[in-house]
Amino acid sequence: MKLTKLFALIALCIASLSLQAFAADPLPSWNDGAAKQSIVEFVQATVDKSSPKFVPVAERIATFDNDGTLWPEQPMYFQLAFALDHMKTLAPKHPEWKDKQPFKAALKGDLKTVMAGGEHALLEIVMATHAGNTTEEFSQIVKDWLARAKHPKTGRPYTDMVYKPMLELLDYLRTNGFKTYIVSGGGIEFMRPWTEMVYGIPPEQVIGSSIKTRFELRDGKPVLVRLPEINFIDDKAGKPVGINQHIGRRPIAAFGNSDGDLQMLQWTCLTDGKRFCLYVHHTDAEREWAYDRNSRIGRLDKGLDEAKTRGWTVVDMKRDWKRIFPFESR
Amino acid sequence: MKLTKLFALIALCIASLSLQAFAADPLPSWNDGAAKQSIVEFVQATVDKSSPKFVPVAERIATFDNDGTLWPEQPMYFQLAFALDHMKTLAPKHPEWKDKQPFKAALKGDLKTVMAGGEHALLEIVMATHAGNTTEEFSQIVKDWLARAKHPKTGRPYTDMVYKPMLELLDYLRTNGFKTYIVSGGGIEFMRPWTEMVYGIPPEQVIGSSIKTRFELRDGKPVLVRLPEINFIDDKAGKPVGINQHIGRRPIAAFGNSDGDLQMLQWTCLTDGKRFCLYVHHTDAEREWAYDRNSRIGRLDKGLDEAKTRGWTVVDMKRDWKRIFPFESR
Repeated sequence: MKLTKLFALIALCIASLSLQAFAADPLPSWNDGAAKQSIVEFVQATVDKSSPKFVPVAERIATFDNDGTLWPEQPMYFQLAFALDHMKTLAPKHPEWKDKQPFKAALKGDLKTVMAGGEHALLEIVMATHAGNTTEEFSQIVKDWLARAKHPKTGRPYTDMVYKPMLELLDYLRTNGFKTYIVSGGGIEFMRPWTEMVYGIPPEQVIGSSIKTRFELRDGKPVLVRLPEINFIDDKAGKPVGINQHIGRRPIAAFGNSDGDLQMLQWTCLTDGKRFCLYVHHTDAEREWAYDRNSRIGRLDKGLDEAKTRGWTVVDMKRDWKRIFPFESR
Repeated sequence: MKLTKLFALIALCIASLSLQAFAADPLPSWNDGAAKQSIVEFVQATVDKSSPKFVPVAERIATFDNDGTLWPEQPMYFQLAFALDHMKTLAPKHPEWKDKQPFKAALKGDLKTVMAGGEHALLEIVMATHAGNTTEEFSQIVKDWLARAKHPKTGRPYTDMVYKPMLELLDYLRTNGFKTYIVSGGGIEFMRPWTEMVYGIPPEQVIGSSIKTRFELRDGKPVLVRLPEINFIDDKAGKPVGINQHIGRRPIAAFGNSDGDLQMLQWTCLTDGKRFCLYVHHTDAEREWAYDRNSRIGRLDKGLDEAKTRGWTVVDMKRDWKRIFPFESR
C-alpha cells in the first residue's frame, strides 16, 4: 500500500469518528417534545444490540401513507388534480364527454357536481384518465404533468410540497437500517415515477391502488396495457392485505394521518414486540390545513380515539413541526 | 487512533486486496463453456463503469423462476406434494372427502385420477389445503411440512434439493449489486417461509400466485385470513404483470426453464439496452430429469425455439453443470 493511500485512509477514519462524536440532530425540523422524543427512543432501542427491543436489520420495515402523511391532500387529492388536468388533454378525442356526466362537470371545473356523483363518478374519471395506455406511456404522462402543474394555494410544483419533517424522518430511519415503504390509497403507478427522486423510495417499495394490466407484444415489442378495471384498492382493510402481498413481513413501524390508515396501524402495532405507530394530525390552518373528525378528505376520527387508547404518537403539526415545507424560510 | 487499531486496519486492507487479486471462481459448479462465459461477460459489462453496457445498481434487477429453475419439479411440483400430504392431515375434519373427487383419489394416492380432473381438480385441492387459516398459521404449516417431508426419489428434504450452480449464480449476481427476485407460478406464501434461508431471497423479493386474504380483528388481535378465492396467477403472461406490480421496473436479467417463463424473458430481453435471458434445459436423466417439448410438467417448446432465434443462453444441465445438488460429492 502506498503511503499516500494509507494517510487518506487514516484521514477518513478520523473524519468518520468526528462525525459520530458531533452528530447533528437528525430531525432538525421537529420541535423538542413528546412526539420527537418517542421517535428517537424507538429508533435507538431498535438498533441497540444490548436492548431487549433490538430488531435485526431484515425486519426493520416501516410503512408510510402518502396523501396527508408525506405530502398534503388539500384542497383535493393531488392525483385528482392530475386526473382533471389530464382529462382536458384527452377531451378533443372524446366529444361525447361534453354531454355526459361526470365528464361535462369536470371539464367545466365544476367539482361540486363531480363530488355529488360520489365514488362512482370519481371512478369513471380515474378510469378515463388512467387506463388505455401502456405502463411506460402513463409514467411519462405523470412526469410531464408534475413538471408543469402548480398547486392552487402555494403556486409551487406538487413535488416541492412534501413535508420536510417527514423527509428527515425517512432519512433517519434509513440511516438506522430501516427499509421505508409507501402504502397509499393512491395509484401505485401515479407514485412510482417520482417517489425515488422526492422521498428516496424506489418503485419496488411503493404499494398502492391499481388497475389491471395485460401483457402484449406490439410489433414485436412487449408492453403492459393499462385496462379500465380495478385490480386492488389499497385503503383501510386493504392496507394490511397490500402490505402482506408486497412485503410478506409485518412492519415494525407505521405512519398515517387518517382513518384510512387505521388498519395498517393496527396490523403493525397490535402484536407482540416493540412497535411504533404514529398519526400526523393536521392542526395548522395557517401553514397547512386544519381538519380531522368531520373532513371529507383524510378524516381522522376513529383513529384519533384509538391512538389515545393505545398510546400511539400523535403529531400536532402546529406545535411539533418547526417548519412544514422545504421551501419555507426557517 | 491507537497503533494496534491502525495495524489491524492495514492488515484488513491488504487482506481485501489479496482477495481481489486471487479471486476464486464465483461459479465453481459450472463447467467452462458458452453458458458460463455468457453469464460472466454480462455481469462484468454491467458493473464496469467504463462500459457502454454499464447499469446503475438501482436498476440491476434479476428475476428467477423457481420450479425447474432453482429446484426440481419432478415427479410433481413440490407444492403439489405438500398439498397432498396436508390433505391427509386435514382429512379427519372432512369426512365428505371420502366420497368426493378429486379428494377421494388424492387421499388414496391415485394421482392419475386427480390429474384426469385437469386444472379444476388441482384448484380444488389447492383451495382445500391452502385456505381457511391465517397467513401466520399457513406459514407454520409449510415450515412443519418442510422439516419432515422427503423427496420420493432422493429421500432428501425438499429444501436440500436446490441447484448448486443456481445458488452460486444468485450469490454472484448479488455480490455484483443485483437485487434477486423469485417470480414463480407457485404460491407466494408457500415460498416465503424458506426462500431467505435457502436462496438468500427475502420475502419482499418473492412474487408468486396467490389467493385472496381478508383483514380481521380476532379477540383484538389483527390477522389476515386466507380465502378460497384466486387472487393472481403468476404464470405465462401473468409474470410480466406480477413483476410490474411488485417491482415497478423492468428486470435486466431473467432466468427460467419452461414456456411458462417465456413472457417474462420477452418482457426482460425484447427491449433496448444490455439484457440477459437464460433457459435451464433439463437434459440429465441420470443426475436429475430429462424433459422438454412434450412434458406435462415444465414444458419447454416455444421457449426453446425463441431462445435460439434471440440468442438467449440455454444451459444444458448435463454438459454445463459440474454438479447439480449441494449434497453430491464432487
